[in-house]
Amino acid sequence: MKSHTEYLWMNVPSRRGFVNITSEVSAAVTRSGVREGMVLVNAMHISASVFINDEESGLHHDYDVWLEKLAPHAPTSQYRHNDTGEDNADAHLKRQVMGREVVVAITNGALDFGPWEQIFYGEFDGRRKKRVLVKVIGE
Amino acid sequence: MKSHTEYLWMNVPSRRGFVNITSEVSAAVTRSGVREGMVLVNAMHISASVFINDEESGLHHDYDVWLEKLAPHAPTSQYRHNDTGEDNADAHLKRQVMGREVVVAITNGALDFGPWEQIFYGEFDGRRKKRVLVKVIGE
Amino acid sequence: MKSHTEYLWMNVPSRRGFVNITSEVSAAVTRSGVREGMVLVNAMHISASVFINDEESGLHHDYDVWLEKLAPHAPTSQYRHNDTGEDNADAHLKRQVMGREVVVAITNGALDFGPWEQIFYGEFDGRRKKRVLVKVIGE
Repeated sequence: MKSHTEYLWMNVPSRRGFVNITSEVSAAVTRSGVREGMVLVNAMHISASVFINDEESGLHHDYDVWLEKLAPHAPTSQYRHNDTGEDNADAHLKRQVMGREVVVAITNGALDFGPWEQIFYGEFDGRRKKRVLVKVIGE
Repeated sequence: MKSHTEYLWMNVPSRRGFVNITSEVSAAVTRSGVREGMVLVNAMHISASVFINDEESGLHHDYDVWLEKLAPHAPTSQYRHNDTGEDNADAHLKRQVMGREVVVAITNGALDFGPWEQIFYGEFDGRRKKRVLVKVIGE
Repeated sequence: MKSHTEYLWMNVPSRRGFVNITSEVSAAVTRSGVREGMVLVNAMHISASVFINDEESGLHHDYDVWLEKLAPHAPTSQYRHNDTGEDNADAHLKRQVMGREVVVAITNGALDFGPWEQIFYGEFDGRRKKRVLVKVIGE
């Protein structure tokens, strides 16, 4: 069995944002030499997500509005977590809706994707550096 | 390491619906010959889900009502994504709540499941053909 | 390829609660002898979750309040699932928000975690014994 590990550095300049990381993950799969297997891609920080959906800016706007409705940032005093001095409790909630990780099949040396699948990093408490883990296993 | 790949075709005749695919996944695991490993099962379309829960029609009704409350289909004009000519923005939101994929352990050649676990395909924008990927790795 | 399987028994004395299981998972990884691979950790019951987030009691309180807002327990008659004699329909909904499983990379023989990542069992219908599956594969 082969394995291959890479870390992607993210730095979203606003509090929230979505970054398409499909090409970086695809390149890591190529570098791994794995032809049949799986790749795990996960946020290493607990106020961020990795998820698969559409590369369409209108939808990303919809996600942002929707997540803010499900788990509003303000007033920050509504969350006990923010009593610790943080203001990011909402980010921990939003991340649960969008998920921490994706696992993608590798077939014939490539991401085995449907027609519209793209991998995104979802940032909910940005303006600082965070990492994404890419772990490939297979043969 | 062994690997095995199958694609299931789905065609839900209504906009939304849940389909139990446990027996198809189980059969794919048997065909793989893998005794110890993991199976990834994911929707290949971004307005559909694969998830694990209960085979109980009342609960499926509850999921449908609840998801429609969290991310209503109408009015379709409330979503920017629908400005592209689509009417399925809500499906992309519902899919994030229910998830894209499951990873299930294979132990002694079978799905290593608790007493009530069943695998479902969740459709949120149906009336057309879509695929589910089943990827088995192990030995 | 090596594989290793363990089952953790949980018994949360209240209806809802969060239990940090990071050290149990870490010990299972050590026992597996796997240096590079992945570990799957999943609830084997469909009204419970396994997820990764922060070990901070204020945040756990926030999760509980938030999930109760998204999918209230009472009135239990609002859910068709409860017509079967159950009162736990809300638990099946909450579990979907928080997720069934996590997959964690193993690098150099240890969980490859960011600075704050901790693995939790999330119980939404407790006061009875349930199991968590830990499956390690790799080399």
